[in-house]
Amino acid sequence: METHVILVQIAVILVAARFFAEIASVLGAPRVIGELSAGIVLGPSLLGLVTPNDALQLLAEIGIILLLFEVGLETDMGRLVRAGGRAMVLALGGFVLPFLLGFGLCYYTFGLPLIVSLFVGGTLTATSIGVTVRILEDMGRQASREGEIVIGAAVVDDIMGVVLLAVLYDFSISGSVNVENTVKVILLVAVYFILAPVAAKLLAVVIRHIHETSEAPGVIPVALVALVLSFAALAHFFGAPELLGGFAAGIALSRRFFLPLGLTLHLDSSFNRKIGDQMKPIIQLFTPIFFVMVGLSLDLSAVDWASPFFWTFSLVIGATAIVGKVAAGLMVKEQRYVRTAAGMAMVPRGEVGLVFAELGRAADIFDNEVYAAIVIVIAYTTLLSPFWIKVYYRMYGQHFPPVRTAREDEPEPGARPP
Amino acid sequence: METHVILVQIAVILVAARFFAEIASVLGAPRVIGELSAGIVLGPSLLGLVTPNDALQLLAEIGIILLLFEVGLETDMGRLVRAGGRAMVLALGGFVLPFLLGFGLCYYTFGLPLIVSLFVGGTLTATSIGVTVRILEDMGRQASREGEIVIGAAVVDDIMGVVLLAVLYDFSISGSVNVENTVKVILLVAVYFILAPVAAKLLAVVIRHIHETSEAPGVIPVALVALVLSFAALAHFFGAPELLGGFAAGIALSRRFFLPLGLTLHLDSSFNRKIGDQMKPIIQLFTPIFFVMVGLSLDLSAVDWASPFFWTFSLVIGATAIVGKVAAGLMVKEQRYVRTAAGMAMVPRGEVGLVFAELGRAADIFDNEVYAAIVIVIAYTTLLSPFWIKVYYRMYGQHFPPVRTAREDEPEPGARPP
Repeated sequence: METHVILVQIAVILVAARFFAEIASVLGAPRVIGELSAGIVLGPSLLGLVTPNDALQLLAEIGIILLLFEVGLETDMGRLVRAGGRAMVLALGGFVLPFLLGFGLCYYTFGLPLIVSLFVGGTLTATSIGVTVRILEDMGRQASREGEIVIGAAVVDDIMGVVLLAVLYDFSISGSVNVENTVKVILLVAVYFILAPVAAKLLAVVIRHIHETSEAPGVIPVALVALVLSFAALAHFFGAPELLGGFAAGIALSRRFFLPLGLTLHLDSSFNRKIGDQMKPIIQLFTPIFFVMVGLSLDLSAVDWASPFFWTFSLVIGATAIVGKVAAGLMVKEQRYVRTAAGMAMVPRGEVGLVFAELGRAADIFDNEVYAAIVIVIAYTTLLSPFWIKVYYRMYGQHFPPVRTAREDEPEPGARPP
Repeated sequence: METHVILVQIAVILVAARFFAEIASVLGAPRVIGELSAGIVLGPSLLGLVTPNDALQLLAEIGIILLLFEVGLETDMGRLVRAGGRAMVLALGGFVLPFLLGFGLCYYTFGLPLIVSLFVGGTLTATSIGVTVRILEDMGRQASREGEIVIGAAVVDDIMGVVLLAVLYDFSISGSVNVENTVKVILLVAVYFILAPVAAKLLAVVIRHIHETSEAPGVIPVALVALVLSFAALAHFFGAPELLGGFAAGIALSRRFFLPLGLTLHLDSSFNRKIGDQMKPIIQLFTPIFFVMVGLSLDLSAVDWASPFFWTFSLVIGATAIVGKVAAGLMVKEQRYVRTAAGMAMVPRGEVGLVFAELGRAADIFDNEVYAAIVIVIAYTTLLSPFWIKVYYRMYGQHFPPVRTAREDEPEPGARPP
């Protein structure tokens, strides 16, 4: 495709994302709904103005990696670790329940073949870490108690999803599961998550040194984007999702990161502030492209709206998708409202669900009807749950513990660069 | 190509660009030399680590468009208009002289065929607006008297180059020149350059309004990048080079832009300052990719270093390339040092010369030997002239009129956003 066409597409995506986000905002809906809708409107579902292509996919991928970097940057690692047990419960529950329910319904009630039922179950295990994080952000609940549990759980869920995908893919080809391979993947991912933040922190110290000694500007955007992208690629090599590389780099550079064994490598808060200031415009530029591309990938034109199987199947599986995650939330040891909100935040399947669905289609496991139903379930959960969550917060907001205030995060007075 | 490979490539390009730029800086050379050398080292000439691909080309193209946007943003239109006559002399002289000299030498001295000689002449007309601007920036001479003449001349040269390329391409296919088409292209480009800045200015007022009323951050990076990219695409549709669309948008948003007929649409300087602050990290991120890609495209492994024709031809044509542009500089009515520096700044052929050379090769007009010689001439002029210019400034710096100080550009006190 010629460059000028892609330039126009990027411009259209950016403008549409903003336009629909503003409309969503006026209507009282979370802004991410607007960006996802922009993709549905521009894409094959409606206007067909923009078709997904490699260049846009790359920019979207960079967008989600940078968004996860930002999430990591704003994460308080101590609180994440303390939320770890509850996050694990939410992740495991939100993985096992939808998988078993989805598989059982498909296999026993709808009488679908074994491998199809397994793939439907697999698709339902997904949590869209991007959409989930954006909903929390749009609501100002990122640093809340449920926010930290959900971010931790979404990270764990993403890792489990990759492992499950590999296992199911193996099974669909060879009819058996290679346990050794599975264990290897899990171990490698674990090694990555232990080593990557430490390495990123050491590199950050080098970057700060270059930033302070170099005569030319531009160290922060260039060095940090290079750092984040190479950690994303490294995550891929270790078998983890690329976007979690962004998260690992972000958490290492956050102000509240600590190394194991109580070691600390101090990055002063004015450097942290500069990172935030200079990375923000870049992150704001790339992330809307990601959400629009998720909307673009939800091809609703593939749906046969007249099929009765489609309606029954998608409604039953859709309900399962919601119930499974919310039930997992209720299993978390937390105040009632917090755990319900946490479960609800895990509902959107988004881009992660689409990866499963696409693989299912590409491997001829899903026929058109099942694929269409799965896509519409992903669309339900992705587009509707931000609404419910907003309504839930509006109704029960007063019962939530207060969000950690921004004040304790502010730098010392005068630390702001001139 | 898979995403994680491209992510690694981007990271490698960014790190190498910075690393070589720092080395260049330590050695006293302009930083752009470092970025170009990074491309030569990473590319097919030496290591072959990175091969140009569509995704990297797109990022590079966005980089040069954004760099030209920044140049436009920092250009004082009044001064550009006042420098217009001298810029025109420099552009025309630097176009006609190298063309005639190059063509004459090829056709009469080296006895090359007519169309080959015309294409060599055409290649020599090029000015690398990107490298030229970066040299001026690296020397802190962007706002100098010769700086404004050179920027104006490089813009005009780029337009003439596109027209010449279309004419020569026509000629190589049909053996005749379509005058009507040529006039149409020129008129369309003229229309673009009259309308685009006005349209961009009107849109900027809309963007400022959205920026002030929107509840969510990120208006400036998203809206401005969309604006710049769509003006670049628009330039393409009008037959002008895309990067000049970035320049048109930049000049419209500069603090010293005025509409025709004395109309003014005021953008307060605090908004302008915000544009600069938020766009800078994005520009700093993308532009090194462009210069590395120029270096990558200079495939020196194609050169047969043992060929005597190659040496004679490339030395003679290389000398012509330099003499033609410097002589054009001397034709400008300016103080001796200013006009010499202006001529020298026009010497690098860079990416624009490569476009001619590539077309010549793709259309089978250049055989391998001529192509290799042309590439090496482009490399000479691109890599060596920044050195000479730096030496020239060091030797005669005291004879130049002072550069416009930054002070008159500063906003009113207190206009800085909190």
